[in-house]
Amino acid sequence: MFSHHKELAYTVRVDKPNPVFARMLQQAIGGPEGEMRVMNQYLFQGLGARGPERYRDMLLSTATEEIGHIELLCTAVAMNLEGAPAAASDDVVTNPLVAARMGGMEPKHLLSAGMGPMPGDADGVPFNAACIDISGNLAANMVANAGAEMVGRTLAARLRDLTDDPGMKDLLSFLIARDTQHQMQWLAAAEELNPERRAVPVEVPDEGEYAQHAHAFFAHHDEPVPDDVIWANGTAPDGVPFTTAEPAPRLGEKASLQGAPPYAFDGPESTMPNSQGGGDGIVGKVKEAVDQVTK
Amino acid sequence: MFSHHKELAYTVRVDKPNPVFARMLQQAIGGPEGEMRVMNQYLFQGLGARGPERYRDMLLSTATEEIGHIELLCTAVAMNLEGAPAAASDDVVTNPLVAARMGGMEPKHLLSAGMGPMPGDADGVPFNAACIDISGNLAANMVANAGAEMVGRTLAARLRDLTDDPGMKDLLSFLIARDTQHQMQWLAAAEELNPERRAVPVEVPDEGEYAQHAHAFFAHHDEPVPDDVIWANGTAPDGVPFTTAEPAPRLGEKASLQGAPPYAFDGPESTMPNSQGGGDGIVGKVKEAVDQVTK
Amino acid sequence: MFSHHKELAYTVRVDKPNPVFARMLQQAIGGPEGEMRVMNQYLFQGLGARGPERYRDMLLSTATEEIGHIELLCTAVAMNLEGAPAAASDDVVTNPLVAARMGGMEPKHLLSAGMGPMPGDADGVPFNAACIDISGNLAANMVANAGAEMVGRTLAARLRDLTDDPGMKDLLSFLIARDTQHQMQWLAAAEELNPERRAVPVEVPDEGEYAQHAHAFFAHHDEPVPDDVIWANGTAPDGVPFTTAEPAPRLGEKASLQGAPPYAFDGPESTMPNSQGGGDGIVGKVKEAVDQVTK
Amino acid sequence: MFSHHKELAYTVRVDKPNPVFARMLQQAIGGPEGEMRVMNQYLFQGLGARGPERYRDMLLSTATEEIGHIELLCTAVAMNLEGAPAAASDDVVTNPLVAARMGGMEPKHLLSAGMGPMPGDADGVPFNAACIDISGNLAANMVANAGAEMVGRTLAARLRDLTDDPGMKDLLSFLIARDTQHQMQWLAAAEELNPERRAVPVEVPDEGEYAQHAHAFFAHHDEPVPDDVIWANGTAPDGVPFTTAEPAPRLGEKASLQGAPPYAFDGPESTMPNSQGGGDGIVGKVKEAVDQVTK
Amino acid sequence: MFSHHKELAYTVRVDKPNPVFARMLQQAIGGPEGEMRVMNQYLFQGLGARGPERYRDMLLSTATEEIGHIELLCTAVAMNLEGAPAAASDDVVTNPLVAARMGGMEPKHLLSAGMGPMPGDADGVPFNAACIDISGNLAANMVANAGAEMVGRTLAARLRDLTDDPGMKDLLSFLIARDTQHQMQWLAAAEELNPERRAVPVEVPDEGEYAQHAHAFFAHHDEPVPDDVIWANGTAPDGVPFTTAEPAPRLGEKASLQGAPPYAFDGPESTMPNSQGGGDGIVGKVKEAVDQVTK
Amino acid sequence: MFSHHKELAYTVRVDKPNPVFARMLQQAIGGPEGEMRVMNQYLFQGLGARGPERYRDMLLSTATEEIGHIELLCTAVAMNLEGAPAAASDDVVTNPLVAARMGGMEPKHLLSAGMGPMPGDADGVPFNAACIDISGNLAANMVANAGAEMVGRTLAARLRDLTDDPGMKDLLSFLIARDTQHQMQWLAAAEELNPERRAVPVEVPDEGEYAQHAHAFFAHHDEPVPDDVIWANGTAPDGVPFTTAEPAPRLGEKASLQGAPPYAFDGPESTMPNSQGGGDGIVGKVKEAVDQVTK
Repeated sequence: MFSHHKELAYTVRVDKPNPVFARMLQQAIGGPEGEMRVMNQYLFQGLGARGPERYRDMLLSTATEEIGHIELLCTAVAMNLEGAPAAASDDVVTNPLVAARMGGMEPKHLLSAGMGPMPGDADGVPFNAACIDISGNLAANMVANAGAEMVGRTLAARLRDLTDDPGMKDLLSFLIARDTQHQMQWLAAAEELNPERRAVPVEVPDEGEYAQHAHAFFAHHDEPVPDDVIWANGTAPDGVPFTTAEPAPRLGEKASLQGAPPYAFDGPESTMPNSQGGGDGIVGKVKEAVDQVTK
Repeated sequence: MFSHHKELAYTVRVDKPNPVFARMLQQAIGGPEGEMRVMNQYLFQGLGARGPERYRDMLLSTATEEIGHIELLCTAVAMNLEGAPAAASDDVVTNPLVAARMGGMEPKHLLSAGMGPMPGDADGVPFNAACIDISGNLAANMVANAGAEMVGRTLAARLRDLTDDPGMKDLLSFLIARDTQHQMQWLAAAEELNPERRAVPVEVPDEGEYAQHAHAFFAHHDEPVPDDVIWANGTAPDGVPFTTAEPAPRLGEKASLQGAPPYAFDGPESTMPNSQGGGDGIVGKVKEAVDQVTK
Repeated sequence: MFSHHKELAYTVRVDKPNPVFARMLQQAIGGPEGEMRVMNQYLFQGLGARGPERYRDMLLSTATEEIGHIELLCTAVAMNLEGAPAAASDDVVTNPLVAARMGGMEPKHLLSAGMGPMPGDADGVPFNAACIDISGNLAANMVANAGAEMVGRTLAARLRDLTDDPGMKDLLSFLIARDTQHQMQWLAAAEELNPERRAVPVEVPDEGEYAQHAHAFFAHHDEPVPDDVIWANGTAPDGVPFTTAEPAPRLGEKASLQGAPPYAFDGPESTMPNSQGGGDGIVGKVKEAVDQVTK
Repeated sequence: MFSHHKELAYTVRVDKPNPVFARMLQQAIGGPEGEMRVMNQYLFQGLGARGPERYRDMLLSTATEEIGHIELLCTAVAMNLEGAPAAASDDVVTNPLVAARMGGMEPKHLLSAGMGPMPGDADGVPFNAACIDISGNLAANMVANAGAEMVGRTLAARLRDLTDDPGMKDLLSFLIARDTQHQMQWLAAAEELNPERRAVPVEVPDEGEYAQHAHAFFAHHDEPVPDDVIWANGTAPDGVPFTTAEPAPRLGEKASLQGAPPYAFDGPESTMPNSQGGGDGIVGKVKEAVDQVTK
Repeated sequence: MFSHHKELAYTVRVDKPNPVFARMLQQAIGGPEGEMRVMNQYLFQGLGARGPERYRDMLLSTATEEIGHIELLCTAVAMNLEGAPAAASDDVVTNPLVAARMGGMEPKHLLSAGMGPMPGDADGVPFNAACIDISGNLAANMVANAGAEMVGRTLAARLRDLTDDPGMKDLLSFLIARDTQHQMQWLAAAEELNPERRAVPVEVPDEGEYAQHAHAFFAHHDEPVPDDVIWANGTAPDGVPFTTAEPAPRLGEKASLQGAPPYAFDGPESTMPNSQGGGDGIVGKVKEAVDQVTK
Repeated sequence: MFSHHKELAYTVRVDKPNPVFARMLQQAIGGPEGEMRVMNQYLFQGLGARGPERYRDMLLSTATEEIGHIELLCTAVAMNLEGAPAAASDDVVTNPLVAARMGGMEPKHLLSAGMGPMPGDADGVPFNAACIDISGNLAANMVANAGAEMVGRTLAARLRDLTDDPGMKDLLSFLIARDTQHQMQWLAAAEELNPERRAVPVEVPDEGEYAQHAHAFFAHHDEPVPDDVIWANGTAPDGVPFTTAEPAPRLGEKASLQGAPPYAFDGPESTMPNSQGGGDGIVGKVKEAVDQVTK
């Protein structure tokens, strides 16, 4: 279970409120590269983890830290909105200075949240859990988590660049440092789990005839691959030499699908439908067999 | 630009059509760990890539390969649906054998696609691009891509385990091998871009007072961290030793937000609203300043 | 069934068209607090209602009224767009006055709808039915509906504050008045259904050992709860006194999950996979039992 | 900030694992009436709250409790999946007993999460924050929260009815009791904030000509409203008598939109387009005015 | 505005309730080819229509009819759920007959809607307005509407095939007949608006050098296009002969993007960042120019 | 399978980069009327096509062309972003000229994509496959595709109108010409498949008593339908005369649903729940019957 402490994980100070920057910060809350994503990603990975307890502990501990980051960023959004104009929007249109501010402000910050943060991104798109990776494979999760932190740290660095506010720069520098730690810890765990950097999942080797495709770059373009390209002519992280297939081989034949069953109403080229949904093809035969079994 | 060749990238053969397995395969087409995700992830990363051309070429070449994988899996879905029952659903309810098949079949395969594949996952949820990582940072992208392939290879391995059909096992073994290659190429590129495994983006170092937070594990739980936990007591991939903060420090103070502006209708505790949207607080002052500027 | 009358439910008059305000109005059409939500919420609640007819009638009657509110707001959006610029966007960038207008205008109003309303919110996010509450429990629905109207009336009040246009102020005042009525009618029905304000669903009482948790505030924070806080030290709306658990009790033990089954590819710590998907654990035993039954 | 304790908020015990029930439990995690919704709803409402501190404290404390409920339910899902079959799906089709289990099992529990919980609902639809109400108005939020708990308690009661497992019944009885408390606390706060039960937001009264519409039931149907219907012929919760408008009045005129601007390509009935986006109508005049101002 | 009549648009009769068929019917309510799509599509097209009134009238009249179709299908869903089992789900797993029914039943019909219809599709995916076409171009809308009806009529025909229930067959036959009318009316209007079947929008002709691409089939594959293929070698509906470009021409050069700006943190290959967000490239120059203008 | 050629399908040239226009172009990439929609629509229709090979070939060939259009537009977005300001957003607020640009710029182009294109629309909403029509009926697909191209061509025409940049005008003129060809080819195929323009699916005729509803306009409004309205008083495209039902007939009776089963917790009006989920109504009887069968 969890408990809340009123002290924040880090001081949030806004020297000069800026509603445009509040909008930008939302991307770090509810965007696919934001804190709601990593918080939920680590939480669900941790709550479903069945392996050694140390990984589960790390996942849940860092998930908990990320809830606190949502708190930090939401507080920063709320503080930046304290200077937001509420002038009638007719002014917005005729007054370039107000217009500029309103033009860039997130309408939902006023309309939906009454000058508070919202569970969405910089464009007001509600958070969608489709961005969460939870493979159930620890090694895959560690690398996916490192990627998520790298993407998130890039976003934080861009946000820091976009502001001159000392308080905001301070907060973002702290978050950037934490992203460094998180990257490092996921990478360290990935290395512990898979020191030879074999393909993940490691217990699923490529064998027999398929092994030839497991370290071969398929070049799906016209120009030759340069000699110094590692992933074509060098050695893979697991020590196996890469090969190149140039152009990419066509290993299959033309696709050939069975004619359309009439009940799919596939167009004038199919036969007339059988209102019972049957037919003479494979479907009808299956139905007959089923009928026999269940008499 | 692109061209299509009627030969498939690999032979698709279904020995015994199985509509339940068709449903399972959809996860590898339109799920967050499926081919539509990686195809679009590599395509958009490649089309926006501004660095050395070799990375762009690799991204676009593998994106192109993934379109062919969508083709392979869609063909496999269509072939597995060729045995789907079309008996009236009243039978479905009273006949356990038919019921079992229909119960597990994806309704949209018949209702929406007429026995064809659909751009969604194993639950019929339409593909949503929120799962796509496109950071614009090459090193972050390479690690995120490796994570995506690891997650995808785990899915393919599970799918192979779920079928005894030799044709499906053959196709999935091929896709698993290709996922090996893709993992290896993204990891090789990540290493080439960031051989010292510094935090990404590498040009954003942690400095000054923030450096202390950049390699410190914050333990957000009650129990002590064991001594042999690398991410607390070992060395990070970039060579810096980890430290531990136990319990996690509370570096901030209580959050303190400005009182609610009346026009936000924040509840009875706020003062009466000013129908002009003004007020005496910071908002009113801003409005006054704006009025002066724009007279 | 339904019929349409060309007269609007209320006069829509726009004295000075304003495309920025058109964008704001969209939140009241397709946002989670907008008319598409309540229209569909009441419609689906009503069409599924199985209790006394008077509730069903009220739900369907008010759902019908809300379709007319969509019509009012869409008409208002269309009229506000009549002043929208269609100047080439190069002008947008170099001309601050035009830019200000265009910067705040919703691009889809021109690009997708050709100067018409769209089924989305103030940020152009398409309406998503995930915001609709349809519990199938009349009393719960009445309270959820009252909440939806309160949220919606708050939005309408903000919108009225944002405009000086007399026509728009008139329309929004009408909609605000109707939201008053709708709040009152849902609250009246909630009271009729549950005059003692017991927990909903009322036919599911808390009994035995669980009753102690049913009126106890769990304080998940460090500081003491003040004496005058009703929900900790006062009396609940159903007449039962509240108690406080401070700090929140930890009623469970550490979670303990079974070791990872090999076929889930849970990482290097699991045993090698069994390609048949079996194993020696509980899964294997279940499979054996199943095999016996179905021989 | 937050901390995690390894003890659960309540004991999770599964006497007989049941993957179909695991799927049902997902609705209480990631569905619109689930814990992810209320956890985020209270968290964002609390982090944006600007009124008296006691409301903010309550919101954040209960939000924290709900994170623990996500933990409880995810653990319950994971435990129920321990009996899930991993037999090849060909068996699924030919063996009705296995088929029945697999037919009702959520494919993503194996395919995406490797026998763990996932951030989605009972149909595998990813959680979407569009279901979250954050109005920024405390009184509206309290009623919306009570509605959310009522909807959630109804779901929990249905889930308890669906299982005979003593452990699951115990857990759900605990959650039902907590939902009672949460309902009561939100209702108590709503009453404290708005003891006279006036329309929310209370500081936005209906005045003048609009007051007549604020307590009038508009009957959008053919049949007369019965005399004993409170919301038509009784007294509203704020003490004002209801009136009825039967049939619903048509207060507006026919909508009348300006002719289509040519650059909107509105069909053959519009005049030929002006490639400059101009025209002779209101748009052109605005553009002229703008040009003069900005010269 | 709208009014509701308690008589349904057509009789809904369910001879033998079937919860599996209830699930199937949901696709016709909330799926991309369902009634919520067409109802909203016609409603928003009509409410934004600025051309001759007869088109607006038709759109709104048929939109109104479609609300009644939602009512018909929701009633049919509710009636089909009257036979749904509510046995504890433990039985579901051990009892194949119950399991079969439950396996195919939509969990949300019980869990979320309490045996009522829901605003989603056959997989429980909430309706999403992204499926709605509202181009603002009347001729385009008419053809898109005809397509939507054709897709919907195909779905209705499949649903009728799936049931033996005389009541359901009767209802679906009625809906199929109405889809015929709707197809015909949109096609008739499309023909009235664009009798020469020129490209839509008709006021945007292809001229000059571009005309050569306007009736040329680009063959993006290896094999020759057969002689009798109309769209390559025949005559287009507007009377212009088709030509073929085989293989598809490569009319552009290789893409060439500017080097990455440092502040985008594009990876190690970019120069070190400028914390002011400036630089020497085009961005810096723009910033300088801006600074001059606004001094 | 597919291959990529570095030459673009057409030259992309941006004379004067414009980040506001980059945002507008996104609608043509990831909006419901954009290239991601048609690319996936044709791809999935083609991969599931079971009829004559010439249709499948056309669908896959044009799908391939559309991937190249995504490439063209993404390249155009990236080039238009080359002039985007990266000035700190504090400047944005105080400097109207910068503000204007930033106000209209898509935040994710910098924050998420690092000055690259993204898989979303002009409002930053991620692409959602719910907009894809794949009916599995060839004739329906051809008309739906024609509609999609008409909608898309309308968008392209608006985009061309919004820019004065010669390069962008050139690119959009090319795309408009290609949309002409695509419209013509889908219309030609629709005519080939259904020369008599009967209702689609053509093999599902309206018969018996239903035929009277198949060519009857139902007028759901108060005013009379003018005599010259084809869809009421003229002849349908299939040669059958239209009739009019004025007002729309009420062919059904009032809906009548069975009383609420107690286990649905439908509110105080239902009887007390049976914790076993049984009851005396139809549900209990079904359960009894099931118990007998499975003894």
